[in-house]
Amino acid sequence: MLICYACGRAAASGQRCPDCGEPLWFDTDPAGFDWPDRDGVRAFADLLPVEAPDSGLAAAAGSTPLIRASGLDVEGVRVHVKLEGTNPTGSFKDRGSAVGVAAAVSGDAGTAGVAGGERGGEAEAPTAVGTVSHGNMAASMAAHAASAGVDCVVLVPADISDSRLDRIAAYGPRIVRVDGDYGRLYYDALDLGPEAGIAFVNSDSPLRVAGQKTTTLEVLRAFAAAEAEEGGEVGTVGEEGTSEAASSPATPDAVVMPVSSGGHASAAWKAVCEATAAGLIDDPPRLYFVQAAACAPVADAFARGDDAVTRLEADEVGETVAYSIANPDPPSGTRALRAARDTDGAVLAVDDDAIRTARRDLAAAGMRIEAASATTLAGLRRLRERGAVDAGEHVVLVATGVGYGETDHGDGDTGAADTETVTRGGLAAALGVESTDG
Amino acid sequence: MLICYACGRAAASGQRCPDCGEPLWFDTDPAGFDWPDRDGVRAFADLLPVEAPDSGLAAAAGSTPLIRASGLDVEGVRVHVKLEGTNPTGSFKDRGSAVGVAAAVSGDAGTAGVAGGERGGEAEAPTAVGTVSHGNMAASMAAHAASAGVDCVVLVPADISDSRLDRIAAYGPRIVRVDGDYGRLYYDALDLGPEAGIAFVNSDSPLRVAGQKTTTLEVLRAFAAAEAEEGGEVGTVGEEGTSEAASSPATPDAVVMPVSSGGHASAAWKAVCEATAAGLIDDPPRLYFVQAAACAPVADAFARGDDAVTRLEADEVGETVAYSIANPDPPSGTRALRAARDTDGAVLAVDDDAIRTARRDLAAAGMRIEAASATTLAGLRRLRERGAVDAGEHVVLVATGVGYGETDHGDGDTGAADTETVTRGGLAAALGVESTDG
Repeated sequence: MLICYACGRAAASGQRCPDCGEPLWFDTDPAGFDWPDRDGVRAFADLLPVEAPDSGLAAAAGSTPLIRASGLDVEGVRVHVKLEGTNPTGSFKDRGSAVGVAAAVSGDAGTAGVAGGERGGEAEAPTAVGTVSHGNMAASMAAHAASAGVDCVVLVPADISDSRLDRIAAYGPRIVRVDGDYGRLYYDALDLGPEAGIAFVNSDSPLRVAGQKTTTLEVLRAFAAAEAEEGGEVGTVGEEGTSEAASSPATPDAVVMPVSSGGHASAAWKAVCEATAAGLIDDPPRLYFVQAAACAPVADAFARGDDAVTRLEADEVGETVAYSIANPDPPSGTRALRAARDTDGAVLAVDDDAIRTARRDLAAAGMRIEAASATTLAGLRRLRERGAVDAGEHVVLVATGVGYGETDHGDGDTGAADTETVTRGGLAAALGVESTDG
Repeated sequence: MLICYACGRAAASGQRCPDCGEPLWFDTDPAGFDWPDRDGVRAFADLLPVEAPDSGLAAAAGSTPLIRASGLDVEGVRVHVKLEGTNPTGSFKDRGSAVGVAAAVSGDAGTAGVAGGERGGEAEAPTAVGTVSHGNMAASMAAHAASAGVDCVVLVPADISDSRLDRIAAYGPRIVRVDGDYGRLYYDALDLGPEAGIAFVNSDSPLRVAGQKTTTLEVLRAFAAAEAEEGGEVGTVGEEGTSEAASSPATPDAVVMPVSSGGHASAAWKAVCEATAAGLIDDPPRLYFVQAAACAPVADAFARGDDAVTRLEADEVGETVAYSIANPDPPSGTRALRAARDTDGAVLAVDDDAIRTARRDLAAAGMRIEAASATTLAGLRRLRERGAVDAGEHVVLVATGVGYGETDHGDGDTGAADTETVTRGGLAAALGVESTDG
C-alpha cells in the first residue's frame, strides 16, 4: 500500500498522488521492528515492499562503511562519513535499484508500480524496468537489471557524452536517446510505463525511496550499536574504543546529504520516522540537505519560507561542478522541504569554490568522491559558521557517490604538478640517504 | 616475528629472507582462532601483526561482497564473485594499505619493516610510508596515509600518464618520478627504506600480504557461515535459501585470482594454511592464479615445471589490456608457484581476446571491473575446458579492482553505437505504446 505524505491519500499503485500530485511512498508498519544484526539493503526487508534477492548484485547493495573522519572535524563538530561510493556500481543508487528490480521480478504489477497508470493502462506484470538518467542511476539500474536478467530501458538526452554512454551501455540495456525537454521525461515515463509494461524506477519512485531508506537506517543502526558498547565509537561496532574516542551518542545529531530530485532526502526522512515509530531512537537527527548555488530550487524555497518548490527556468540555472545534482525541477523537492523542516534541519546552497575546496579536503583525508557529494562538507562548514551545528555534535556526511568519470579525469587541482623527477642513481639523495652508488 | 616460507629462516624484521632471498611473511599462531562475527580487515586482528585503527579509511577496508553470479556459471560450475572493487579506493590494495599504515603509526620499526635494512640502517620508527606503484596500490597507500595523517612517498615511472598521476596526487603524497628501470625500484626501495625512515609497503611486503590475507579469510568465512545454515547459499548468510540455492559446501572448491607480483596469491595461500591450522576448514580450496599471456612469467614457470620463476626480459614482454598485472619480474612469483602446487591448483595464462570477452560478459552480468580482474573468468573457462574444474563445483572469482580509468573511458566494446534517437513526441511509439499526443 502506498500513501501520500502530504495529504494522506492511500493508493494501491502509481507513483504520484491522484489528489495532490505529490510523490507517494510505501506505507510501512515499523511497530515491533528491531535493528537487524547486519547492514545491507536485504537486512531491512521487514520495512521494504519486496525482498531483494540473495544473489547477484542485489545482495551486494548497501552495507557501506560509516567512518569517523576526525581530520575533517569542523571547529569541534565530530564528522563521520558514510561512503556510499563503495556500493557495487559506485553510488547509493544501487539501494533503490536492488529493490526496484526485485519488484519487477516479483511480477506484482502493483508493487512494481506499473498498475494504475495515469492513462489507465491494464495492470500486467512488467516485462522490463527502466529509468530516466544519464548518470549514476542509469548505470545502477542497467547493472542490477543485467544481474537479474531483466530487460532495461534507459532514457538519456540525445546529446549524452560518449563516456557517460559507455558507462551505461556496458551493461547492455536498451538505450533511447530522447531529443527534447529532458526534464519532462520523468513524467513521460510515468505516463507511458504502465502501458509499455516498463516499470520505471526514477529518482523518487516509491520503490527507489524504499531502497534508499536503508542508507539512513544503516547510519542509525551503527550509532545505536556503537553507543550500546560503552566507549564505543561508530566504526568500532564490536570493538574497543580508541584513545581519541569519546562515546558516540545513541543517534547522530545531524545527517547532511546532497539533494537533487529529493528522493534520497525523502528516504532519509522516512527512515527517521520509521526508526522513531519503532521506538529505536529517542532523539531524531536533524536532516540537512545541500544544493549547488547554481541550481538550488529547494534551498531557494526553504530560504523564502515557501511551502512548495518552484521549478527553475533555463535562464535561472547556471553551470556547476556538482552537475549530477543540478535538477531545476526536483519531483520530490517539496517533500524534501518538508523533511528538513520536520526534523528541525535546513536546506542550503553552497557555491562551486566551496565545493571544490571541500572535495580537495576530503581527498586529503583519504576520500576521493564526486563533487556532488563534497557539497555535504561545504554545507556543514556553512552550518557551523551560522551556529546551526555545535561543537561536540556528531554529524554524518553522506558521500553519495565515488564519481566515475570525475575521479580519474582530474580536476586540475590535484597538485600533480608538484612532482620531482630523479634518476635511479639519484633516488637515494632524493630520499635523504647517502648514496652507495659511488 | 617473520619467517621464510621457503627455507624456514626466522627474522625479526626485513622483507626478504637473508638466506635464500625469498619474501618473508609474518608468522602467526592460528591455534584457537575462530571466525569473527563480521568481515573487514579489523575483524581478523588476531591473525595480523598490528591492529588497524577503528577510524578513518582503515575501518572501511575489506568487508566486500561475495555474490553468487549464476549468470556466469561455466557448464555447471557455480560461480561466485568477490567484489574487491567496493573497497574505499576501488581495489583489494586497501587491505594491505590499512595494515601497512597502521604498522608505521605504531612506531614499532620491526613491525613496520624498517629495521634490519640490507644496508644495516639503525632501527628507528618510520617517519613516512611509501610504495612503488603508479596504479591501484599507489592510490590506496596515498589515501590510507592521508587518512591516518602519515607522510607518504610514492615512486612512479618518469613517464607516468596525467590521469594516473591525478588519481594518486589527489591524496597529497610526495610523488617522485624515477627515470630508469622501474622494475628495479622495488629492490631500491627495500634497500633505502630503513635508512630513509620510509616504511615501504610494496606489492608483496609482509605487512601487505598480512592485510591481503583477509580477502580469502572473508571468502572462507562466508562459505562456512552459509553452510552452517541449512540450505543457505553464500550471499545469504543469516537469510533463508532461495529456490535456486543448492546448499554451498563448507568451503569453495576453488578460488581464482589474477597474479602479478604474487603478493595477493601468497596471501591467499597463507589464509588457507591458517584456516586449516585453526581447524576451520577440512577441505582447502584449490588456488588458481591467472596471468595475461603477453606477460606470464609465473604461468610459464608452472607450465615448465620449474621450481622458480624466471624474470622476463623486455623483448619477451608484450602489450596487454590487463596491463595492471603485467609484471615481468614478480617478487613473489616463486611463492605463488608454490601456493598453486601446494593446493593442487595451477597458474595459467589467457590471451587478450579471452580477457575482453570475459570483461564484457561480467559487465553483462552487472559487474564492470578492470581487465586484470576479468582474467579470472577467462581463466575459469580455460580450466573448465581442460576438465580441471567439474560441474557442480563452487568457484570464487576474485575481482580485484573496479578499474578507475578503465571503466569510464570505455573500451569501444560497449555497444554504445547500438542506440536509437527519438523526439519526445515519438517516445510512446518507441516504447510500443499508442501515442496520445494527437
